[in-house]
Amino acid sequence: MKKPALLAILPNAWNGLWQTRLTDGTIDLIRFGKRPYDPPEIDYVLSFRPPQGLLKTLPNLKACFSMGAGVDGFFAYGDYPAEVPLVRFSDDTLSAEMAQYVLMHALVHHRGQRRFDAAQSAHVWAQAMLPRRTEDTRIGIMGAGVIGTFAAEMFVKLGFPVASWSRSRKTLPGIESFAGADELPAFFARTDIVVCLLPLTPGTQGILNAAAFAAMPAGGFVVNVARGGHMVIPDLIAALDSGHLSGAVLDVFETEPLPEGSPLWSHPKVTVTPHIASISQPRVAADYVMDGIAAFERGERPANIVEFGRKY
Amino acid sequence: MKKPALLAILPNAWNGLWQTRLTDGTIDLIRFGKRPYDPPEIDYVLSFRPPQGLLKTLPNLKACFSMGAGVDGFFAYGDYPAEVPLVRFSDDTLSAEMAQYVLMHALVHHRGQRRFDAAQSAHVWAQAMLPRRTEDTRIGIMGAGVIGTFAAEMFVKLGFPVASWSRSRKTLPGIESFAGADELPAFFARTDIVVCLLPLTPGTQGILNAAAFAAMPAGGFVVNVARGGHMVIPDLIAALDSGHLSGAVLDVFETEPLPEGSPLWSHPKVTVTPHIASISQPRVAADYVMDGIAAFERGERPANIVEFGRKY
Repeated sequence: MKKPALLAILPNAWNGLWQTRLTDGTIDLIRFGKRPYDPPEIDYVLSFRPPQGLLKTLPNLKACFSMGAGVDGFFAYGDYPAEVPLVRFSDDTLSAEMAQYVLMHALVHHRGQRRFDAAQSAHVWAQAMLPRRTEDTRIGIMGAGVIGTFAAEMFVKLGFPVASWSRSRKTLPGIESFAGADELPAFFARTDIVVCLLPLTPGTQGILNAAAFAAMPAGGFVVNVARGGHMVIPDLIAALDSGHLSGAVLDVFETEPLPEGSPLWSHPKVTVTPHIASISQPRVAADYVMDGIAAFERGERPANIVEFGRKY
Repeated sequence: MKKPALLAILPNAWNGLWQTRLTDGTIDLIRFGKRPYDPPEIDYVLSFRPPQGLLKTLPNLKACFSMGAGVDGFFAYGDYPAEVPLVRFSDDTLSAEMAQYVLMHALVHHRGQRRFDAAQSAHVWAQAMLPRRTEDTRIGIMGAGVIGTFAAEMFVKLGFPVASWSRSRKTLPGIESFAGADELPAFFARTDIVVCLLPLTPGTQGILNAAAFAAMPAGGFVVNVARGGHMVIPDLIAALDSGHLSGAVLDVFETEPLPEGSPLWSHPKVTVTPHIASISQPRVAADYVMDGIAAFERGERPANIVEFGRKY
């Protein structure tokens, strides 16, 4: 009997995957670009973003696995075969590590740690109260899925007033819920630190723009760990340079790696990190793929299949 | 009828207190050094560290209020009048803000944020997995009071293995409990990031010393937000310089402000902050003192009276 064949289309950074269960011999693993394959033999694809047109050339494709929680890369060219189930990666560690990143950067801002770093460099004991009290620092989380809810709950425990914004209204204890495009201005108006954890869809593309920043209170701060496409960079730079926004932390960009000539690298109010807020671990990712393939082979459907009407 | 008289012995940084309930006229507020007083008139004292011998000169002292959660300043000279109740400050915001500081600095280390800062300065996209996986990064919290327990629970939620060390054994879900001097070496041996939140007592003076650092695994990291007296600085510098410890964050020092000549200011592995992990807010502190005085005046005892056998 033919083994299930998995075509893996991944950047070289993912070399750690080839020392996991994916290479235990129970499946036929084909690394895209490393060995030729016959399109009809491919049963499954693993990727962040398959090349345009490629999936349509695979007549026997049973399912696709996304290496990340976001699946927008599969829909980038509008050519995803709707009859093929798409599974997205989700695990508790991924949620916790994304929350770690968001908490850390919100706290570095809230606590004024960059100023203490500068004072240390100058050997100056610069004791000061918090720039703004915790109970007056309103956190706004965009996206109320697993990760957004988790992060929101952590901020509540740390004493911050928290609201979320999402497509549909949520009921989470201690978290004010805003929903839909109509409530977006009110959400931004009550938010001192906004954290974007949204999926990238036509409805959320460019959602962090001049109107959003203008609606935020003076001194507002922005953290984007979702997708580069959520953020209109010229609008962000204008809002920072006018003094209205106090800073931004960006982990994701329309073009990655961020080009060397980008003004973001040296903007004094911007922290740039190289898309590391949450990185799937090879071992955990391999379990997700292998368990998913086993489920399909048994005729079952694994958890976390993307609903096509929503595209995330 | 004579109003209750409060002698406030505080550094100038606490000027915010004079715009609170403390000056509403219902008590007689005497700022030490600003106006003379007759010792028998003093009913209450508010301070971090009263001058040596001063409390013994007040024959009618009913109680003392500590401006901080730590009360070691009252016992610094061994002259505290044991018959006078001592109340320590505690509020939820203080606990949450201390936890914010500890989480932030542990996460900056865990996530390798200092390296990303350096990469940004060089305009380099330095994508990398976490230096150490979250589930392999063992947090050790010294002190299992309100703040220690709160911080430990937050680390558990963020996916870290957590243990606490305290005088007596605790039972907290998901947190391994070490207790007493005998279990200290085992506690350090399983701890990658140690956070000191202990009260300063004769039993905890110098507890972060060469033996502790040697017991920790290579790459260990230390956060001290308790008292400068917990840390033996020459031992810390030796452990950092040998390469055994990877870094330290210090908010508290034996002499504060930290003297300009201290080698800590410019040590490449040390983060110095000016005792700001947790700063009582004037308004909240005033409520605590005024409510406490009212309780004593009604013949009641407020919460958080220090047990004298324990000195914290």
